[in-house]
Amino acid sequence: MSAKPISRFPVPELRDLPADIRERIEAVQQKAGFVPNVFLALAHRPDEWRAFVAYHDALMEKDPRPGISLTRAEREMIVVATSGANHCQYCVVAHGAILRIRAKNPLVADQVAINHRKADITPRQKAMLDFAMKVALDSAAIGDADFAALHGHGFSDEDIWDIGAVAAFFGLSNRMANMTGMRPNDEFYLMGRVAKPK
Amino acid sequence: MSAKPISRFPVPELRDLPADIRERIEAVQQKAGFVPNVFLALAHRPDEWRAFVAYHDALMEKDPRPGISLTRAEREMIVVATSGANHCQYCVVAHGAILRIRAKNPLVADQVAINHRKADITPRQKAMLDFAMKVALDSAAIGDADFAALHGHGFSDEDIWDIGAVAAFFGLSNRMANMTGMRPNDEFYLMGRVAKPK
Amino acid sequence: MSAKPISRFPVPELRDLPADIRERIEAVQQKAGFVPNVFLALAHRPDEWRAFVAYHDALMEKDPRPGISLTRAEREMIVVATSGANHCQYCVVAHGAILRIRAKNPLVADQVAINHRKADITPRQKAMLDFAMKVALDSAAIGDADFAALHGHGFSDEDIWDIGAVAAFFGLSNRMANMTGMRPNDEFYLMGRVAKPK
Amino acid sequence: MSAKPISRFPVPELRDLPADIRERIEAVQQKAGFVPNVFLALAHRPDEWRAFVAYHDALMEKDPRPGISLTRAEREMIVVATSGANHCQYCVVAHGAILRIRAKNPLVADQVAINHRKADITPRQKAMLDFAMKVALDSAAIGDADFAALHGHGFSDEDIWDIGAVAAFFGLSNRMANMTGMRPNDEFYLMGRVAKPK
Amino acid sequence: MSAKPISRFPVPELRDLPADIRERIEAVQQKAGFVPNVFLALAHRPDEWRAFVAYHDALMEKDPRPGISLTRAEREMIVVATSGANHCQYCVVAHGAILRIRAKNPLVADQVAINHRKADITPRQKAMLDFAMKVALDSAAIGDADFAALHGHGFSDEDIWDIGAVAAFFGLSNRMANMTGMRPNDEFYLMGRVAKPK
Amino acid sequence: MSAKPISRFPVPELRDLPADIRERIEAVQQKAGFVPNVFLALAHRPDEWRAFVAYHDALMEKDPRPGISLTRAEREMIVVATSGANHCQYCVVAHGAILRIRAKNPLVADQVAINHRKADITPRQKAMLDFAMKVALDSAAIGDADFAALHGHGFSDEDIWDIGAVAAFFGLSNRMANMTGMRPNDEFYLMGRVAKPK
Repeated sequence: MSAKPISRFPVPELRDLPADIRERIEAVQQKAGFVPNVFLALAHRPDEWRAFVAYHDALMEKDPRPGISLTRAEREMIVVATSGANHCQYCVVAHGAILRIRAKNPLVADQVAINHRKADITPRQKAMLDFAMKVALDSAAIGDADFAALHGHGFSDEDIWDIGAVAAFFGLSNRMANMTGMRPNDEFYLMGRVAKPK
Repeated sequence: MSAKPISRFPVPELRDLPADIRERIEAVQQKAGFVPNVFLALAHRPDEWRAFVAYHDALMEKDPRPGISLTRAEREMIVVATSGANHCQYCVVAHGAILRIRAKNPLVADQVAINHRKADITPRQKAMLDFAMKVALDSAAIGDADFAALHGHGFSDEDIWDIGAVAAFFGLSNRMANMTGMRPNDEFYLMGRVAKPK
Repeated sequence: MSAKPISRFPVPELRDLPADIRERIEAVQQKAGFVPNVFLALAHRPDEWRAFVAYHDALMEKDPRPGISLTRAEREMIVVATSGANHCQYCVVAHGAILRIRAKNPLVADQVAINHRKADITPRQKAMLDFAMKVALDSAAIGDADFAALHGHGFSDEDIWDIGAVAAFFGLSNRMANMTGMRPNDEFYLMGRVAKPK
Repeated sequence: MSAKPISRFPVPELRDLPADIRERIEAVQQKAGFVPNVFLALAHRPDEWRAFVAYHDALMEKDPRPGISLTRAEREMIVVATSGANHCQYCVVAHGAILRIRAKNPLVADQVAINHRKADITPRQKAMLDFAMKVALDSAAIGDADFAALHGHGFSDEDIWDIGAVAAFFGLSNRMANMTGMRPNDEFYLMGRVAKPK
Repeated sequence: MSAKPISRFPVPELRDLPADIRERIEAVQQKAGFVPNVFLALAHRPDEWRAFVAYHDALMEKDPRPGISLTRAEREMIVVATSGANHCQYCVVAHGAILRIRAKNPLVADQVAINHRKADITPRQKAMLDFAMKVALDSAAIGDADFAALHGHGFSDEDIWDIGAVAAFFGLSNRMANMTGMRPNDEFYLMGRVAKPK
Repeated sequence: MSAKPISRFPVPELRDLPADIRERIEAVQQKAGFVPNVFLALAHRPDEWRAFVAYHDALMEKDPRPGISLTRAEREMIVVATSGANHCQYCVVAHGAILRIRAKNPLVADQVAINHRKADITPRQKAMLDFAMKVALDSAAIGDADFAALHGHGFSDEDIWDIGAVAAFFGLSNRMANMTGMRPNDEFYLMGRVAKPK
């Protein structure tokens, strides 16, 4: 277990947090076996924490959603690819773990983080990540041709909103992690790489 | 009044929105005299809308905040500078208007949007915007020297969180506006440029 | 009225300038109601001033020109878009004012300065600005395909010269304004935004 | 002698040009032994030609100038370095020739065109080129520290204007050459590389 | 085991290779338990293979070397950091594995690949990687100050050569891997992450 | 003859080098009339020297090669274009000389170094250099479309390997030259520009 600081800013103790925040964090802890550092680092500002988690859940948790074809694994691919582009250590490590688990694929996260064009994913998923990368890196240049390309792969406009919104939300998340010097938990690095002991 | 579409995606009618969203929007409308398009364009996804507005309010609305030295005008400067860097038409136009009003200065928004280094602002405000621009454009390179520079201008760590969080939040907001093709209301362009008729 | 310096370099008094320069400046003053700072800041070097103004007039003033389809408003669009790309405060503010007046449109300058792709202009004008931005930002890569795209929108070769030459001339102008720290007159900010009192 | 076109646009015959332009070109021809293509390519637009040549002469021809410490060779260094940064074939080849002659140094032009930091020039000249490159590539970021660095090398403010103005003028010139596809005369490549036969 | 192609180009069978190449590959296979794909993909061109491997061995294999303070783990850090900057999937995955083993640290490779500034390494190692990244991304700007910074951390000139040469060699290696579409072996992903069974 | 240092690092005397290295260098000296500085600067590390030269020879020396359509002049074009992009003074100057000789064309090297798109070369050679530049500057983005474009110009896959490998090898070479501050011999500047005296 690491004793390194997980943020440049003060990190609250779980027991000192407002009840709604503490309960949500304890639920995650129960499921994951540990508290991901993002929950504690951002809890320094409870109101921002609540909005951040609500936004995250609105985009990432519901699965399947009516009328949306993106799987949870695909949404995590977007997170990992754009977080790689933003050089966000916390997000690549933490969401790389979640992607490996959601996709049941121990290789895909490292591939997508470095170069999504060469990952073991479908052409449709590559088109999805091309658009997500454009949202992350050059959103002002988005135009009709980008939407047409995604429609050509069978994505609906609702799917496109999802792709763009996930890339945009992690545009925020990556910057917060980089600005606060957020440290990924050591536990993430190995998650989804080896079969769970039964 | 413009009849141009305000988003590439479906835009709900105010009357069709959930009551909590509708009420909030009506309150803004009452105060501003019109409904800023961001409220309608993002309301296509009510849960995301709620999180977005909650995050915005947590960062931008409270003023003064205990222990924070940034004024509302300064927070709007951050929005305008970083939105200029991200080439976000909606955010520069809409928050340019708010900045002019908050700062009671009809010139500062255009100056900050194009080149904050040459705006009529204090050296301390320029340092604040230097950091915000680094969060917007190169957050992975943020390090101790950046914090030291801000401390040298009298910013506390809580102030720095604010600067970084506003820049990060509009990293999300700019990308959503660019991705959805969000159109600024015509009303914004003139706000804060001329004295209100009494 | 601002008492801020308008240049890092010495600024001559109007009365101390050579007669030809003084007369031209007074003519502008008569028409505009004030002396745009560029005329005084560059007059520090009379010979360069004369060449600058002659070049400007050759490209910007004649309207219509035989065999040229670009309107004055369109030429000003090129100035505003490329000056935005070069982060030139003087040129965006001053030529934004002229564009609003020439185009009789109070919104278009702010739109074009931030992201010409989303401005209220025609597809032909967007193609014109795409080429102007390439001249401004990546002129070495210009090739046959760029000319073909403009021909496809009905631009003649003479039109293309105009587009490129305006973008190139403001490549000079923007750099001089940035290097000298040229300050836009306060009067420009509001010009063309409100109907003139009759 | 090359039969390749020297411009994408129509190139006038010398005999068809207005007398003032023809005379100036013939004077150059007499001195250089050939007509540099820039004079013919730009003469397609006589008014722009006159302004271009007047601007060029105001900056490049007078030597020495009262109160200016830059030599003609140093001004040509600025042209070659910034034209290299802008990938302007005409300007690097043509002004590389002039630099070799002015500096009486057959090596310096190729060195400066590729990487001025490693050229056989003085630290003061490297500082001069550092500033010129900033004017060429990132003029919006110029600030007090850049002026202080040049003052530290003994450059006056008038010198700094010269450095910036030459870099800015070739910001225009490079873009015109790239846009028109201007071809350097074959004669330039060898000029200043070998001792002239006596 | 993956059946995906390991190169866009023909891949020789081990048994068809010249004896010297086959023997070297078999030695690696014996030690690692598998044949890293780079050995087969590059063996399409035996002479280039021999030079590549000789270069690699000259830089990476000898440890310790007389007068050199860099450890093998540190050399692998350079590989992983610069390969991340070049988005080379093969090199990040394969050398990430070697770095984990050499450093006996299951976390450091993922950290260094994404953002070396936030990795669990010493300030001296961060300075080493700052220089390596400059060699990878902006080598023309290297100057005295870069050498001075490394000397300040106790690196000798021989150490600096090593840092630069490793970064430069993987400048070649990353481009070959990207150009050939080289696929990392599945085995690499888990190496060095879990204790070897005894 | 220049007395300037040819490397930041110690440069061995020819007589102190191992026999194999000395003999190879003397053979070059005999042919060229001087010892190119790269041979001495890199000989500071004999093992790396041997690998470097072997790699260079495998790619650059054999001509014609069975099944390869690239001429030696074309391979040198790749070197000059990519070395220009990497701002490598040694490589542009030295290989510019070789290119002029191989192509029997005194102009082509300066043209290709500054902007290959405007050089006096064939469309097929421009496509070759487009690919080489992508290997040099953005290798992670290489994909099927790049291979298809080259096939469309009649390049085989073996040709493409050559183009990519030469660009990749000089990715190494340029970085070594920039890192060591390698100085081109004065002799190179004039080679291939004038007819040899008979």
